[in-house]
Amino acid sequence: MDPATFRRHGHELVDWIAEYLEHPERYPVLSRVRPGEIASALPRHAPEAGEPFDAIMADFERVLVPGLTHWNHPGFFAYFAITGSAPGVLADFLSAALNQQAMLWRTSPAATELEEVTLAWLRRLIGLPEAFEGVIYDTASIASMHALVAAREAAIPGVRAKGLAGRPDVPRIRVYCSEQAHSSIDKAVIAIGLGHESLRKIAVDDAYRMRVDALDAAIAEDRADLWLPIAVVATVGTTSTTSVDPVAAIADVCEREQLWLHVDAAYAGVAAMLPSHAHILDGADRADSLVVNPHKWLFTPFDLSAFYCRRMDMIRAAFALTPDYLMTAEAGQVKNLMDTGVQLGRRFRALKLWMILRSYGAQTIRQHLSAHIQLAQQLAGWIDAHPDFERLAPVPFSVVCFRWKPAGRTLSDEALDAANQRLNDAVNQTGEVFISPTKLRGRVALRVAIGHIRTTEQHVRRVWDLLQTHAHAS
Amino acid sequence: MDPATFRRHGHELVDWIAEYLEHPERYPVLSRVRPGEIASALPRHAPEAGEPFDAIMADFERVLVPGLTHWNHPGFFAYFAITGSAPGVLADFLSAALNQQAMLWRTSPAATELEEVTLAWLRRLIGLPEAFEGVIYDTASIASMHALVAAREAAIPGVRAKGLAGRPDVPRIRVYCSEQAHSSIDKAVIAIGLGHESLRKIAVDDAYRMRVDALDAAIAEDRADLWLPIAVVATVGTTSTTSVDPVAAIADVCEREQLWLHVDAAYAGVAAMLPSHAHILDGADRADSLVVNPHKWLFTPFDLSAFYCRRMDMIRAAFALTPDYLMTAEAGQVKNLMDTGVQLGRRFRALKLWMILRSYGAQTIRQHLSAHIQLAQQLAGWIDAHPDFERLAPVPFSVVCFRWKPAGRTLSDEALDAANQRLNDAVNQTGEVFISPTKLRGRVALRVAIGHIRTTEQHVRRVWDLLQTHAHAS
Repeated sequence: MDPATFRRHGHELVDWIAEYLEHPERYPVLSRVRPGEIASALPRHAPEAGEPFDAIMADFERVLVPGLTHWNHPGFFAYFAITGSAPGVLADFLSAALNQQAMLWRTSPAATELEEVTLAWLRRLIGLPEAFEGVIYDTASIASMHALVAAREAAIPGVRAKGLAGRPDVPRIRVYCSEQAHSSIDKAVIAIGLGHESLRKIAVDDAYRMRVDALDAAIAEDRADLWLPIAVVATVGTTSTTSVDPVAAIADVCEREQLWLHVDAAYAGVAAMLPSHAHILDGADRADSLVVNPHKWLFTPFDLSAFYCRRMDMIRAAFALTPDYLMTAEAGQVKNLMDTGVQLGRRFRALKLWMILRSYGAQTIRQHLSAHIQLAQQLAGWIDAHPDFERLAPVPFSVVCFRWKPAGRTLSDEALDAANQRLNDAVNQTGEVFISPTKLRGRVALRVAIGHIRTTEQHVRRVWDLLQTHAHAS
Repeated sequence: MDPATFRRHGHELVDWIAEYLEHPERYPVLSRVRPGEIASALPRHAPEAGEPFDAIMADFERVLVPGLTHWNHPGFFAYFAITGSAPGVLADFLSAALNQQAMLWRTSPAATELEEVTLAWLRRLIGLPEAFEGVIYDTASIASMHALVAAREAAIPGVRAKGLAGRPDVPRIRVYCSEQAHSSIDKAVIAIGLGHESLRKIAVDDAYRMRVDALDAAIAEDRADLWLPIAVVATVGTTSTTSVDPVAAIADVCEREQLWLHVDAAYAGVAAMLPSHAHILDGADRADSLVVNPHKWLFTPFDLSAFYCRRMDMIRAAFALTPDYLMTAEAGQVKNLMDTGVQLGRRFRALKLWMILRSYGAQTIRQHLSAHIQLAQQLAGWIDAHPDFERLAPVPFSVVCFRWKPAGRTLSDEALDAANQRLNDAVNQTGEVFISPTKLRGRVALRVAIGHIRTTEQHVRRVWDLLQTHAHAS
C-alpha cells in the first residue's frame, strides 16, 4: 500500500471509527448471528491477487460487523464492562505503526522505560509502595501464572533446573484461594505443573470474602497431611460479586506461614485511586505480587495487564536466560523485558496507558470510577426497594448481583433458576443491553456490571426497566 | 475525548504515521539514547488534570521518538527483521476501536470465526492438512508452551488434576530439541514444571540441523536411565542460522517412540508458501503441533502467533474449564477461544491477518518472500567472493551468518571474536543499519537478517559496504 493510499484509507478509517464510537447504540449489544454464520459467509481460500482496501472494508461492514458483540455499547453490562477509550485507541494505532518489539532494552528503549514510568504512575495512584516493581503482561491470566511460578521458585529448591517430576524431595504442593477466585488461578496451577488438586478453595463468608479461619484450618490440615503450602491468592473484586478478601488478615497468615501472597485485583484494583476505596488494598503492601488490569476499569483497549511484584528477582530467577543471539553490551545496566517472563516479544503497550493517564488525568478517572460506583448503588437501591427482586450480594464497586423472586409466591429453587435464566435471555434479546448471569451458592444470579465510560443513569435505568418488564412477561 | 476531538487527532495521527512510514530512514535505526535517559525525562507522577492530546503528542515526539529503535527502517537487519505493513496497521487501529474480547464465541462471534477462517487460509497456503486446527496466541513462546502442556497431558495420566509433584508414578521427564532451538523452549519447560534439565539439547550437523542419530541415541539412553521422553521440538528456521531440522526423519522417531512432535516454524514457516520452499515442511503433516508467526515474516504488526494442532483436544483437556460466570447457552455448539489455553482474554488479532492476506494476496506475499531470499543469496555471494570475509552457515532463507577473517593474517579465535564484535558495533553506530550478532560453535558471528518489506538491494548493498569499510578501520 503506497503512502497516498495509506493516507486515504487512514482518514476514511478515522471517520468510520469516529462515527462508530459516536453511535455505538445503533447496533444490538449482543451479536445476533448464529454459530457458523460468519465463517460460512467467507471464502475458503485466501485470494491469490491483492484486493482494494475499499472492498475489504465493505466486507468488514457486511460480514463482520453483524458478528460483533459491542463492548463499546453503553448497554454492555456483562462480565466486566470495559472501555477502549479514544486516547487509548489512538495510542494503539500509533503502537501498531511503530511496531516496537521490546524484548530487549535496545530494541525499544522508549517502550522499556515508558513501561517502568507509567507503571510507577499507576502504582502511586493506587497506593502501592515503591518496593513493587512492575511489568506489563497481556492478561491477568498470564500475570497470575507468573506470580505462581515465582512462588514455586521461592518455595522449592532447584525447581528451575529440576522441575517437579521424579523428585522424592518435593511433596504435593498447595495453593489457596477462595471459592470465588477467578478461573485463571485454576488454569495457572494446571499450566505450571502443580495440578488442579493443588488448588484448595477456601470457603467464603456471607459477603463472599475468604474466611481466614478456614484458610488457617486448611493450611494446618494440609501441613499435617504433608502437603507443601506455597501460596495464597487473595482477590480484591471477585468476578461474580466483586467481594474483597481480607487482604491484611491473609497477609498475616502468609507471613506466619511463609507463603507467597498474590493479590488478584484485576478488576477492582484501580478503585484504590478513590479516597473512599483506598482501603481495599489495605495489607496489599505486604503482598508479594499483585495484578491490576487497566484494560478492565481504566479505559484501556484490551490487552494490558499490570503486574507488580516485590520480589521480581524470583521471576527473573525463574525465567532469565540469554541465548547468544540476544546478548547485548548493556546487559546488567538495563532492564530487558524478556527477563521477566515466558514471552520473549513484548508490544509497546505502555504507550496507551501513558496517553490515557495524561489525557484524562487522575481526577477525571476518579470521577468516572465514582460515577460507576454511584450508578451501581442506585441500581442496588431500586432492587432493594422492589418486592419482586432480591439482591444477592453487597455492592462494593460497580457490579450488582440479584434475582427475580416474586413476592407472595413460593417457587422452588429450580423454578427460580429457570425463570431468572429466561429473564436474563429475554432482556439480552432486546438488543438494548447485554447482561451475563452467574451462580451464587449454586443458584442463578442476574448480574449487572457497570464499567463503560459512556454508560449513564439513563442506561442503568433502561436495564432496570427491561428487567421489570420482562419479569412480568416471563 | 469528544467525537470531534477524536476525529481531529485521528486525522493528525494518520498524517503523522503516513509521514513516518514514508520516511523511516530519517531516524537512526538503533536508538542512541543512554539507559535511563527516557525515564528521567518524564515526570514521576501521573497528572491530576487532563492534558490536551497535542501536548501528549509533542512529548511523544520530543521524549519518546529518540528512544525508538526503528523496526520499520529498511536498514533493520537484526534478530528477525519484521514488518508492520500498512493494512495491518489499519486493521490494528480498527481492532483497538472495536475492543473485542473474544474469550467466548458470544463475546465476539466475528473474532472467533474470523480466526478460524484466516488460520485455515494460512494453513492451506503453507500446505498443512485439514487435520490441524488453529488458534491465535500472542507469541511463539506462548504457543510452544501450550504445545508442551499438550504433550505433558498426552503422556502423563492425571497430570491436569494431580500435577507432577509428589508422584512416585511420574519419573523425570525429557523433551528434546537441537542445540540451535529457540530459548522459548527452555522457558517453556521451566514454566510448566518440567525443569530446565528436562530439556536435552541434541547435537547438530555441519549445517546446524538436528542430528537424528544423536536424537535416537539420546532417547535410548534416557529410557535406559528411566527418564520419560514426552516430546521433540523440531525447528524450521532456527534463530541463529535459520537451519531446518529434518522434520520427516524426526517424525519417524516420534511415531516409533510415541512422542509429541512440535514444529517451531515461527520465522520460516511462511516460506512454505513458495513452491521452491514447500519442502521445508515435509513431514510436518505428521507433527502434533506447529507454530508460525505472521508477525515475523508475514507483514503483520506484532503480536500474532498462529498455533496449529492436530490434537487440540489435548489442549482443551488441559485447559477447558467453565466457571459459573462464563456459562453460555451455545457451549458445545461453538468454539470458545478461552478453552484453548491459559489466557482467558483474546484480542481481535485475526482482523489484521485477514486484511493483510486480502490486501496483498498470496502472489504478492510470495514475491516479497522470494525477494528477501534472493537478497540474502546476493549478500552471501558477495561474502563468499571476498577474501576477508567468511560465511559461517548455509542460507536457506533470508538470514546470512558470516564473519570478518582477513586473508593472509593469522588471528586467534579471541582476537577474531573481538574484532567482529567491534565491527558489529561500528556499523550499528552509523545509524544506517542495525545488525545483531550471534555465536556459532562458540565464536562470534555477524548476522544480517532480511525481512522488512521496504528493504531493497540498495539497503543490503549498504550494509555490505559499511561492513567492508569498518572492517578496514577496526
